[in-house]
Amino acid sequence: MRGFKSLTPIREAQRALLERINHTPTETETPTPEAVGKVASRDVVAPMDIPPFDRAAFDGYAVRAEDTIGASRTSPIMLKLVGRHTPGSGQLAEVGQGEAVEVATGAPLPRGADAVVPYEESTVRGGYVEIYRAVPKYYYVSRRGEDVARGEVVVRRGRRIKPWDVGVLASLGIKKIYVYRARAALISTGGELVELDDAPPPPGKIINSTRHMLTKLMEGLGVEVAYLGIAPDDVDYIYQKIREALQHYDVVVTTGGVSVGEPDYVIPAVSRLNPEVLIHGVAARPGRPNSAAVVSGKPVLMLSGFPVAAVVGFEIFVKPTILKMVGAREEPAPTVRAVLTRRVTTPINVRSFVRVHLFYRNGKLYAEPLAVNGSGVLSTLTRGNGLLIVPENREGYDEGDEVEVIVLNPID
Amino acid sequence: MRGFKSLTPIREAQRALLERINHTPTETETPTPEAVGKVASRDVVAPMDIPPFDRAAFDGYAVRAEDTIGASRTSPIMLKLVGRHTPGSGQLAEVGQGEAVEVATGAPLPRGADAVVPYEESTVRGGYVEIYRAVPKYYYVSRRGEDVARGEVVVRRGRRIKPWDVGVLASLGIKKIYVYRARAALISTGGELVELDDAPPPPGKIINSTRHMLTKLMEGLGVEVAYLGIAPDDVDYIYQKIREALQHYDVVVTTGGVSVGEPDYVIPAVSRLNPEVLIHGVAARPGRPNSAAVVSGKPVLMLSGFPVAAVVGFEIFVKPTILKMVGAREEPAPTVRAVLTRRVTTPINVRSFVRVHLFYRNGKLYAEPLAVNGSGVLSTLTRGNGLLIVPENREGYDEGDEVEVIVLNPID
Repeated sequence: MRGFKSLTPIREAQRALLERINHTPTETETPTPEAVGKVASRDVVAPMDIPPFDRAAFDGYAVRAEDTIGASRTSPIMLKLVGRHTPGSGQLAEVGQGEAVEVATGAPLPRGADAVVPYEESTVRGGYVEIYRAVPKYYYVSRRGEDVARGEVVVRRGRRIKPWDVGVLASLGIKKIYVYRARAALISTGGELVELDDAPPPPGKIINSTRHMLTKLMEGLGVEVAYLGIAPDDVDYIYQKIREALQHYDVVVTTGGVSVGEPDYVIPAVSRLNPEVLIHGVAARPGRPNSAAVVSGKPVLMLSGFPVAAVVGFEIFVKPTILKMVGAREEPAPTVRAVLTRRVTTPINVRSFVRVHLFYRNGKLYAEPLAVNGSGVLSTLTRGNGLLIVPENREGYDEGDEVEVIVLNPID
Repeated sequence: MRGFKSLTPIREAQRALLERINHTPTETETPTPEAVGKVASRDVVAPMDIPPFDRAAFDGYAVRAEDTIGASRTSPIMLKLVGRHTPGSGQLAEVGQGEAVEVATGAPLPRGADAVVPYEESTVRGGYVEIYRAVPKYYYVSRRGEDVARGEVVVRRGRRIKPWDVGVLASLGIKKIYVYRARAALISTGGELVELDDAPPPPGKIINSTRHMLTKLMEGLGVEVAYLGIAPDDVDYIYQKIREALQHYDVVVTTGGVSVGEPDYVIPAVSRLNPEVLIHGVAARPGRPNSAAVVSGKPVLMLSGFPVAAVVGFEIFVKPTILKMVGAREEPAPTVRAVLTRRVTTPINVRSFVRVHLFYRNGKLYAEPLAVNGSGVLSTLTRGNGLLIVPENREGYDEGDEVEVIVLNPID
């Protein structure tokens, strides 16, 4: 293949890339709810206890446990009812010896009380409560700090914040947290490109769709993307553009100019930047042109201009790079086991990404392979709802084989 | 249990709720890249072919197939080289009888040509190309429309738009698409609540953290959330607030005021709105207080004020409601099979949501149950990285049982 003397295996390419990256994005303080999807850049420590106070874990009567010693159905103990606490109670009653305060679940335990007798174990008569049961200390009491203790780490550095983390952080009164602010520069190349705003394209031109797709994929990792436009087919220009971008951004992503048959501007431009490592082409199908370099510790990821191949480039280069820089781990992907409806033939020593259509028939799950060759088969991106990854040591799978498939969209 | 005469099974509650909803959100035209995460409200049809023109599928020479009849290594056919096409070529060459044009992969096929002879099957000598092989019509040609044909539906109504859909839609020059604009009103209730901005809370008060968590969960479904504040403990006020919200929003979500031990304001307020259906309490653990109603075809979802129980309320009521209104299906969730480290005991006839901590030991995946009782165990939301759902017909699982667990966060 012209331009690809030898294709680097994906694992080797990733290792060479990741081990040379020596750069951490800056951090920024963000309002807790807005941190969803971002990665914590510091351990977050609980500034208070949860519960913040001893509280009733059941509806009933707050008492002094010692006052209930010897109580039973046949010989109840009478305690004087001196008040009521609800979760929102402002005025705080106190339980003295021989007294009880009615409490609702979640209400602060009145001062002096150390246990809750449920309604089921008691009856109110006149101004008194009959207690039918001796209860131990802290019976039906949620102790202060038993859920989260002050000083405890609740969110570790490197954790991608989820909506339910916000539930915990906000409950602790944490208004802002530190998150990484990873910033990517995106540079498109290719004399054939016109922007979506200028659609329909003139004859022979195509729309720069990869730009929008990659932007959204990177934003999904919590990355801010700055689009720096379509570079003209000019090595000097591209060299300057990448060089400047490296000064202001954590990662530079280019598209186009790396495929067989395309004028070769990007690799020469990056070569001129004296990269510590430069991988030109990778043993992926589709996605062979995807390339990567590290310049002064920062990643320069050169993806195919074709959307299908660029998705593979995103998976094998962009995602691991971002995760490494912010110390995060990959989110789990949904997978299923399905039966192949047709044979899939793939080249040996290449990792193949085969889009499939998953469907149920007679209660059984099947995977129909959509295409295995060419990065131009765009429609597989919308037609496929699953992805079958064929590893390097296989030449495919047979019809009827049960394979593991990553589920990308709901199954019909 | 006070306030819950009978708990409705989840499946029954969902059916009663969903079958009465008779409302569709409005649609809005959105720039294609911004549609990611939203749901298409109309089928999207390809306005052009992809490829938009016949193009070279390999590097080589565009020829007239009939000119190659009889060509072989031993008796090559000579064609006159009359130009070169790259993917971005402006000037369009033409191939006449006995002629060839050099083409790069992706380049428009020159007029007159109908096949591509790869470099490997040819050699240039002087101004001529020696062709070593007879090729059939459309050999190494991507035909116009073979990937996506003009008029074809590329994205169906009800599909949640993914980044790779943007790759396809933008390639087709589709600048905007119609998506649903689902709008939710969120009303918090509970005299004990203070807002996160007012943290730390005074004694006896707690922070309205559920508000932020639910907002982010709903936004994750592509819903716009309008927060209408903390309602005072007043049935009239809550009634008016919900009534007004129903006029302007597609779904009204309340939090608090539905749990055992809480003052009961929300259910009486909704009852006064003459709901077509009213479910008060559901057989879920945690999450029993979660309630739902339909008023004039619109959903009113009354969730617990406790974050852990509210997450369950979101899963069983909010998510299915939103999906039904926009005609979308649930996104696939990642699951694994893991071995329980301890027995899990759950009540019969209740669906239990048990947070677990998934971890590997000696290459085997284990699930450590974190807590099964109480909606107040907030820390399970950050400590757990998995969710075990115990169905209604089981009273739990034994230690050592292999169970299916939904993966919420990366596994250590």
